[in-house]
Amino acid sequence: MRDVSLLITGADQLVTVPPPTGGGGKRGADLAELGIIENGALAADGERIVAVGTTGEIEATCGLRPRGERIDARGCVVLPGFVDPHTHVLFAGTREWEFEERLRGRSYMEIAAAGGGIRSSVRMFRKADDATLLSESLQRLDRMAAYGTTTVEIKTGYALDPEQELRALRLIGALGQQHALSIVPTYLGAHEVPDDYRDRVDDYVELLTERMIPEAAELGIARFCDVFCEKGVFDVPQSRRILQAGLGAGLRPKLHADEIEPFGGAELAAELGAVSADHLGRVSPAGIAALAEAGVVAVLLPGTLFSLAAKQYAPARAMIDAGVSVALATDCNPGSSMTDAMPWVIALACLQMQMTPAEAISAATYNAAAALGLEGEVGSLTPGYRADLQLLAAPSYARLPYHVGSSDLRDLVVGGRIRLRNAAPPALRG
Amino acid sequence: MRDVSLLITGADQLVTVPPPTGGGGKRGADLAELGIIENGALAADGERIVAVGTTGEIEATCGLRPRGERIDARGCVVLPGFVDPHTHVLFAGTREWEFEERLRGRSYMEIAAAGGGIRSSVRMFRKADDATLLSESLQRLDRMAAYGTTTVEIKTGYALDPEQELRALRLIGALGQQHALSIVPTYLGAHEVPDDYRDRVDDYVELLTERMIPEAAELGIARFCDVFCEKGVFDVPQSRRILQAGLGAGLRPKLHADEIEPFGGAELAAELGAVSADHLGRVSPAGIAALAEAGVVAVLLPGTLFSLAAKQYAPARAMIDAGVSVALATDCNPGSSMTDAMPWVIALACLQMQMTPAEAISAATYNAAAALGLEGEVGSLTPGYRADLQLLAAPSYARLPYHVGSSDLRDLVVGGRIRLRNAAPPALRG
Repeated sequence: MRDVSLLITGADQLVTVPPPTGGGGKRGADLAELGIIENGALAADGERIVAVGTTGEIEATCGLRPRGERIDARGCVVLPGFVDPHTHVLFAGTREWEFEERLRGRSYMEIAAAGGGIRSSVRMFRKADDATLLSESLQRLDRMAAYGTTTVEIKTGYALDPEQELRALRLIGALGQQHALSIVPTYLGAHEVPDDYRDRVDDYVELLTERMIPEAAELGIARFCDVFCEKGVFDVPQSRRILQAGLGAGLRPKLHADEIEPFGGAELAAELGAVSADHLGRVSPAGIAALAEAGVVAVLLPGTLFSLAAKQYAPARAMIDAGVSVALATDCNPGSSMTDAMPWVIALACLQMQMTPAEAISAATYNAAAALGLEGEVGSLTPGYRADLQLLAAPSYARLPYHVGSSDLRDLVVGGRIRLRNAAPPALRG
Repeated sequence: MRDVSLLITGADQLVTVPPPTGGGGKRGADLAELGIIENGALAADGERIVAVGTTGEIEATCGLRPRGERIDARGCVVLPGFVDPHTHVLFAGTREWEFEERLRGRSYMEIAAAGGGIRSSVRMFRKADDATLLSESLQRLDRMAAYGTTTVEIKTGYALDPEQELRALRLIGALGQQHALSIVPTYLGAHEVPDDYRDRVDDYVELLTERMIPEAAELGIARFCDVFCEKGVFDVPQSRRILQAGLGAGLRPKLHADEIEPFGGAELAAELGAVSADHLGRVSPAGIAALAEAGVVAVLLPGTLFSLAAKQYAPARAMIDAGVSVALATDCNPGSSMTDAMPWVIALACLQMQMTPAEAISAATYNAAAALGLEGEVGSLTPGYRADLQLLAAPSYARLPYHVGSSDLRDLVVGGRIRLRNAAPPALRG
């Protein structure tokens, strides 16, 4: 009998989200394969999962060490913690007033002219001190955890200045040190064109490729280099130069691609072997075919389109049918998607993009991990993976999109440690 | 100086939601009037609000009794607790599997034939013991409170049987006794036609009017009598008979009206002077005019249409422009709207029904109270009203629809008592 440090038993459903037989993300029919074990159990030792099976099997083979922790999961669904592979969590100050103006019908350009838009977040970021940025961001991570997320990608990109973008990277590194969740840093110096480069975008691209990206890579914090490849921001040749500079410095490419119109972003992602292409609200059929062929993960962000009152979402079904690995993320940011809850994104995936609950859960766990190059590490309840998992007080995984706008999270385990226990709202009696 | 039992000071915004000059709900431009006081303060004595003003004004006129409670609301928005005027909270068991089948494209009729639909909740209700029904429902109310709700209407209607419907009413009464939130019971024996009356609906209408409704009224628990007035359930003449029986027994009418097609429900509500007409996804122009003329509150339930993946929502703007008092509710129920969070409903109102955040907040507080005949009692931070209020950790009331799928609730006060304090998610450090 093996002695372990954490034993979870009796789960109504243990949703393992098994890895696909090939590499990369889950595709096609495999996306709906959740590997459910009824009356399921899981054993972890230290940070890692060591055994998964029925409660009978695990109790027969694993014993709990004297100081180990045990979780009775009866009445619960156990599933991998969510991986949120596209966020801008590091920002200072929120932008409620713009949201209100947008609802009143003012255009993005009018709002930008009145001091709003991404540039207002850049101004707030540059003015905010480190303590403010850290404190606000840590609280956002707490909220993500309360909705079941255990790994969060965070991008720079509200600084748009060589020194300040390095500050952003260091702060994202500090969030990873200070918070219990796993943080994956991405360098996004190419989030927008700074005001003083408006009429000479190529000069900013040169600054990025010659100085900013090499300096950022030098810090050893970022894993990826990202670019906003869209009309009016960085075009395809500029995006290619930026991402190639990242590759040269050891940073794998990611792209904000085809959000507003088909622009060749997906094709560029495929050409460069990007780890993911994100947004894709208007990806072309050729772009979809290219993503499938190259095995680039498509990270869909339906919360953004909801908050922008869009009438049309990314063509998730066409992508799944074409063999693309589809993932989901919050896009948490103060402008277009002030959202931290992955269950809400899963609900949108089901109700607005015709994904099934099972597909959406794979997209928010295994494939979201693949969008960060973390296959084999997180996003599945399989021996050898990190013990990052959540317990929902619910009879079935379908509770996630069904119970919309709310949360059934009971317990959260990160790296084998119980970080939230009985997180249900307090009982208000009498 | 007046001695008080609760003093709240320093709110960035105190959102009073002032009552309209005439009676009934807020209408037209008045719906957007939130009566915001910056650096606002509020004093309550016992259950009631006694003073509202700037922090300077209130501190100059009110002192806290030695054992009184004080809340520092700096960095917060204070607004009335939400009133949720249309729910079916009293049920046993959830229906995730149906939700999943619906997403797979199975029709409601196919699901009903496979044992699903409202009749499956009827079977579960009849089988469940009182303790199960109470325990599940109390937990749902805890969740509603965690999202800022302080008053909840709850309907019977999963029993459809004379004795069991009385049991449902008694259980709703017990929820009101056992839970800190204010509960408003509604009798909905006419929620659906029971299986054994399928071919003789008029016999069930007679059972309702001759026996069930008088017996229900006799209990002294219900305030309202409701009916599902829709094609295939109860037609307009049947609904009229049912609601007149309620009126005769002292129960004010409410209607499930025009949800699926224009059916004359809104017109019937106006004819009978109903306190509210609810759903209205397909209300006709004549129905809108009738509601405006008669001063019937229109309770809109966008969460239901979202969960049914509807392409079209109730015509909120046309109703507001026509002078209808519009309110919002969750419709919390296990079939079509497994939702307990009013902020989520507010987000839908803004993003799918083109209401402004200010209008949506009036609709979820003052007008929702009017939909329960509770004008003057709850839904406004005005002296004389019950001290039912919430604090959001946010700079502006627009945070509610902006921060979608999540919650910023910090404190909740019900009847002058602090029931939730620092309800933010736990900090996960290190």
